[in-house]
Amino acid sequence: MQMQINRKRLEESMAALGRIGETPAGGLSRLALTDEDRRGRDLLVEWMRAAGLTVAIDRMGNIFGERPGREGLPPVMMGSHADSVPTGGKYDGQLGVLCALEAIRTLNDNKTATRHPVAMAIFTNEEGARFQPAMIGSGVMAGQIALEDAYNARDRDGLRLGDELERIGYLGPELCIPRPIRAYLELHIEQGPILEEQHLSVGVVEGIVAISWSKLVLTGVQDHAGPTPMRMRKDALVAAADIVRGVREIPRKIGGDMVATVGRLDVAPNIPNAIPGKVTMSVDLRAPDEHHVTRAVGLLDRLVKDTARAEGVRYELDHYWRVPRTHFDLEVVDTIERAAKDTGARHRRLLSGAGHDAQYMAAICPTGMIFVPSRGGRSHCEEEFTPMNDIEEGANTLLLAASRLAGAD
Amino acid sequence: MQMQINRKRLEESMAALGRIGETPAGGLSRLALTDEDRRGRDLLVEWMRAAGLTVAIDRMGNIFGERPGREGLPPVMMGSHADSVPTGGKYDGQLGVLCALEAIRTLNDNKTATRHPVAMAIFTNEEGARFQPAMIGSGVMAGQIALEDAYNARDRDGLRLGDELERIGYLGPELCIPRPIRAYLELHIEQGPILEEQHLSVGVVEGIVAISWSKLVLTGVQDHAGPTPMRMRKDALVAAADIVRGVREIPRKIGGDMVATVGRLDVAPNIPNAIPGKVTMSVDLRAPDEHHVTRAVGLLDRLVKDTARAEGVRYELDHYWRVPRTHFDLEVVDTIERAAKDTGARHRRLLSGAGHDAQYMAAICPTGMIFVPSRGGRSHCEEEFTPMNDIEEGANTLLLAASRLAGAD
Repeated sequence: MQMQINRKRLEESMAALGRIGETPAGGLSRLALTDEDRRGRDLLVEWMRAAGLTVAIDRMGNIFGERPGREGLPPVMMGSHADSVPTGGKYDGQLGVLCALEAIRTLNDNKTATRHPVAMAIFTNEEGARFQPAMIGSGVMAGQIALEDAYNARDRDGLRLGDELERIGYLGPELCIPRPIRAYLELHIEQGPILEEQHLSVGVVEGIVAISWSKLVLTGVQDHAGPTPMRMRKDALVAAADIVRGVREIPRKIGGDMVATVGRLDVAPNIPNAIPGKVTMSVDLRAPDEHHVTRAVGLLDRLVKDTARAEGVRYELDHYWRVPRTHFDLEVVDTIERAAKDTGARHRRLLSGAGHDAQYMAAICPTGMIFVPSRGGRSHCEEEFTPMNDIEEGANTLLLAASRLAGAD
Repeated sequence: MQMQINRKRLEESMAALGRIGETPAGGLSRLALTDEDRRGRDLLVEWMRAAGLTVAIDRMGNIFGERPGREGLPPVMMGSHADSVPTGGKYDGQLGVLCALEAIRTLNDNKTATRHPVAMAIFTNEEGARFQPAMIGSGVMAGQIALEDAYNARDRDGLRLGDELERIGYLGPELCIPRPIRAYLELHIEQGPILEEQHLSVGVVEGIVAISWSKLVLTGVQDHAGPTPMRMRKDALVAAADIVRGVREIPRKIGGDMVATVGRLDVAPNIPNAIPGKVTMSVDLRAPDEHHVTRAVGLLDRLVKDTARAEGVRYELDHYWRVPRTHFDLEVVDTIERAAKDTGARHRRLLSGAGHDAQYMAAICPTGMIFVPSRGGRSHCEEEFTPMNDIEEGANTLLLAASRLAGAD
């Protein structure tokens, strides 16, 4: 008989943590390094200590808790993040953290010893909603983002990430650098429609799509909306609109499973009776095929150039963040697949369309991910939901895969 | 020999008032009922008292200063507004107020008595940048906007106009209602290119174009920008972009001198990796011909309906503000034209493309306006500029027209 996680305890932990930063509509707004994030972290650290873990916090505020193994070997680490987007949901991120904690609590319940230590991790600012880029905590740990650059990231109010880390008391003493890790396992909601559409409980994630983020600033001529004839206008928002439409067309031109999104768009001065003088916007391009993203960036370059010329506006286009296609570790993916099978979870292999801390961890240790379904494929919204039966099967898959990788008795 | 305004004194007043709310680039951000607006009002009231005027403040914070006439007759009133848009310029509004003050100071210098009192007015929240609708102070005075509705207008931070009026100390005791006025004269910058293109100093304004303001809320499905396939998206910003482009096309379809502008557009949640779930935007439609605006509103209705259906988003479209074509008083317009001629100002008749307090005043008393040129046709921006020679000719035209209407000795 395999070990089984305690479904009731996991549900109670989800409810308790979900109350911190809860929105009136039952979603979650717990942006990175806010007071709500601090309260969520405090509760998690309290639970980790109660589970007998040795807790360490690094210079990026990443939190680690370790359960000793029988031998002085690198740990098997499970984890995710605890920050959310604004008006997000209660599953993206915190579910992976709580399933990791539940897996460790289950090892404790069963007094199961492991050769390798079993650890859990909570990474800082995964969402990129408050500070850019996203996944900054794991990015620094993997040596892909400089610590100083991370500290100097600023939110919209101009607050520095480094200062906010210190303010909430999570600027830890440990170095934020790669170290030997037997394997990193992350359970996360799919955030897409496939598992639900196919009535599956578990996705065995083989890798993550390639991602490109660009920032575009369009500068036209701010003027009065009344007396300025149409012939004289250089309207930054009209140019931006044509680019939003053009970005929507890019996936059709590229084909495959490419997606393209303008998620952020800010207008200045943003009043009804002024012709917009300036627009700042984001462009997010993703595809399973690395070359498709490269081609899409090329199409974006041309789209922006042509549109800006047509409207007579100036522009600055910065492709500031690029994550190559991530391939997860074959042994870890196989172990997860066998664990899903042995747990009895209906499952399939798939790719992640979203970035995750696992992406950076894959650069420094054998990594894999477990997806559970998202109702309606929806996430980054208050309606985010995953049925508890699926969560239970996902958590048992995580527990079994981690136990096997750690060499459980 | 006609009276002449004191150019140096006018320039000094423009410089002094322009320092209150000045932006680093030399523009002006003095939004209605902010601390900067209060400081600007305080300085103007001080100057008005120093010029011997009896100052009265009404329940909308409109400020009036009156110089007695020889007889108990209705006053000739000159005025404009002292609030600005964000990162606006130093000419829109405050120039008209300061030219009115300068005209009165000149009457004082010359010890000129008039049959009618000569008054000046400073209207609250003309711009509509902080509180909507625009021209709210004159609108209430003209009985076109209910006082309670005006008090309940809220800015983006949820602050009430009534509360802000009280906070800055300009909730006055006088009733804000129509009263007998011999004539209302407003000097203002053109905010368009015509006077400059034709090398003229003064525009004799015959009326104001018809204006319609609409608010549109588009509600799509907020979701993660990565794993959500293109086929499933209901992106509020994509729909908004198509509407921005469609609004740009409306004047081409209508013809004439119609203009159409989306000046404000807000996205939620407005982060790079979420498909926008909601967009709120403004649509401003104007034309010299009333029927053209009516047809444009019809085109907008269809555009929004078709676009929302194509993207699968819901919408609420509210045509919340409509100002009919304003025809100024024939006698007042003629008086201004003769004054421009007698002042030696190169001038022409034209229409205003922008709304002004004169629009509401025209409903309760004989009204006219005097335009001075806008460099490059530009306004509502920090680059707003009018040459001092043109301002001097405009101010002298205002002084002469007001003197004649007031029956100067």
